[in-house]
Amino acid sequence: MRIGFQGATGAYSESAARRAWPDSDTVPLERFEDVFGAVAAGSVTHGILPIENSVGGSIHRNYDLLLEHELPIVGETELTVVHNLLALPGTSLNRIRRVFSHPQALAQCERYVRTLPGVEVVATYDTAGSARLIREGGLRDTAAIASARAAEIFGLDILKAGIQDFEDNITRFIVISRDSKPLGPPDKTTLAFALHNAPGALFKALSVFALRDIDLTKLESRPARGLPWEYLFYADVGVSKDDVRGARAIDHLAESARWVKTLGSYPRWSGEPSAGPPRS
Amino acid sequence: MRIGFQGATGAYSESAARRAWPDSDTVPLERFEDVFGAVAAGSVTHGILPIENSVGGSIHRNYDLLLEHELPIVGETELTVVHNLLALPGTSLNRIRRVFSHPQALAQCERYVRTLPGVEVVATYDTAGSARLIREGGLRDTAAIASARAAEIFGLDILKAGIQDFEDNITRFIVISRDSKPLGPPDKTTLAFALHNAPGALFKALSVFALRDIDLTKLESRPARGLPWEYLFYADVGVSKDDVRGARAIDHLAESARWVKTLGSYPRWSGEPSAGPPRS
Repeated sequence: MRIGFQGATGAYSESAARRAWPDSDTVPLERFEDVFGAVAAGSVTHGILPIENSVGGSIHRNYDLLLEHELPIVGETELTVVHNLLALPGTSLNRIRRVFSHPQALAQCERYVRTLPGVEVVATYDTAGSARLIREGGLRDTAAIASARAAEIFGLDILKAGIQDFEDNITRFIVISRDSKPLGPPDKTTLAFALHNAPGALFKALSVFALRDIDLTKLESRPARGLPWEYLFYADVGVSKDDVRGARAIDHLAESARWVKTLGSYPRWSGEPSAGPPRS
Repeated sequence: MRIGFQGATGAYSESAARRAWPDSDTVPLERFEDVFGAVAAGSVTHGILPIENSVGGSIHRNYDLLLEHELPIVGETELTVVHNLLALPGTSLNRIRRVFSHPQALAQCERYVRTLPGVEVVATYDTAGSARLIREGGLRDTAAIASARAAEIFGLDILKAGIQDFEDNITRFIVISRDSKPLGPPDKTTLAFALHNAPGALFKALSVFALRDIDLTKLESRPARGLPWEYLFYADVGVSKDDVRGARAIDHLAESARWVKTLGSYPRWSGEPSAGPPRS
C-alpha cells in the first residue's frame, strides 16, 4: 500500500496510517482534494482522511469530497490525538513568543494557549509543517503544536505533552481507493441519503435497517448545500452492502429517499484507538 | 433585552442578535462559558450562541455547555456569514503581510487566503477583535477577516468582500435565558438523549415522534464524552414541550432512553437568514 495523506511528514493522518498498516509507504500531500486527486490518478494506491473527531464532530469537507468523487471507502482506523508543545532543544517555555499550528489544533488547545502570556498564535496549513518551519528557520522564540512523532522527525523537544483542552480526543480516519476492494472482510457501510421533507420520513428510512436488525453506529443530519436547512443524512450501518440483508436494506431505503449513495463497505476498525504517548 | 455574546463588538453573534431583536442591548464577553456565566449571574437577561453552521456543522462545545448548565433555550435566529478582508483605509492588497482572524473564519476562507502570496496567517480569539487590533495598533501591513459591521465600527475599508470558500454559509444561533419564558409562542424543542447500544434503539426512539406526526428538523449522533464511540443524540422537533403531544412524546422517549434532557422550547425562526451585504 502507498497511502496519501494531507499534511507534512509527521501529521496525525500519517501516524494513523502507519500504525494501522505498518508495511505501507506514506505520501504527504498539501490538501484533502490532493489526496482524492492522487488516488484518482493512481500515484498512490490509497488515501487516508480524517472523517470524525470525538470533540470537534464530523469533518464535513471530506464528506463533501466523498460525494463529489467516485472513490469508495475501503477501510477505517482511529487515533487518539495527543497535542504537544514542541520547540528547538534548549528553548525554555518563557522564551516562547509565537505558537504555530493548524487552526483546528489551535482551537483544541485554546485553553492551554491562553495561559501563555503575550504569545502570538500563528495559523499554518498543518501541525507537522509547523514543526518543520521551526527546524528549518532555527526559530528559537517559536513553538509548534504537533504530534510526538513530528518532534522526533524534526529534532524538536516536547516542552509540554498532552496540551489539548479535552481528553478522549479521538479521530476516526477513512481509507479510500480507486478500486472498491475492502481492506478485509467488510462488515460496515457508510451511506449518504436525502429525504423528502415530511414528518416521519427519517423514521421510515431507518425502518429499513431496524426491521433487519442492522445496527446503526452513526447518524447525522446536515443542511444540504445550496438548499439551506434541507437536510441530507450520513449513516454508518453494521452490514456490508454486498451482504443480502445489507443490499436489500439499501434497495428498500432507495424506495423512499430522494437519493441514496453508498460511499463504501469496509471492515470496522476493532483495534484500540490509542497511539500517542500517555498524557503527562 | 440585554443580550450577552462571545467576541468583540462587531462579532457575527452580535449582528445576529441586533438583527433579530433590534431594540436589545448587546454585551461583548470573552468566551462561550462567559455567556453562560453572565446569564446565570443575571448581568445580562439573555445570551446568544452559535449552535450550527451549514458548512462547519454543529458547534459541539455549545451543546456541551447547554448540558452542563441549566439555562434553557428560549429563541433562535439565523445569519448568513459573509467574511470580508478588512484593512486600514489607504492600504492596498499588495502591502498586506499578515492576516488576523479567528481559527474558524481562517478555515472558512482558506482557499482565498492561499492566493495571497507570502502572507502570515495569525489566529486570534475573535473576528471583530482582529479588526480592533489593526485599528488600535495602526497596523498598515495587516488585514483582518471579519464582518462588514466590524469594518464600520473600527473604521476599516473592505479590501475584498465575500471571501469565504463556500456560499450558503449560514449560522444558526440559539438564545438562552435564566427563566424558561420563550421569545414567542414555542413550536420547536431541542432535546439531548442517550440510548442503550442495541440495533433498532434509535428507530424505537424516533417512533415516539413519528407516531404523533411530529416533524424532526435535526438529528445528530455524537460520540459520548468519556465513552468514546458510544453515542448521544441531539434532536430538534417541531412541537413545544408544553403541548400535550410534545409532552407525551418526550415521556414516551424517556421510557426507552438512558436519559433525556429537554434543552428548551422556543419559536422556530422564520425570517430570512441573510443579513450581510451581497457578495461582490
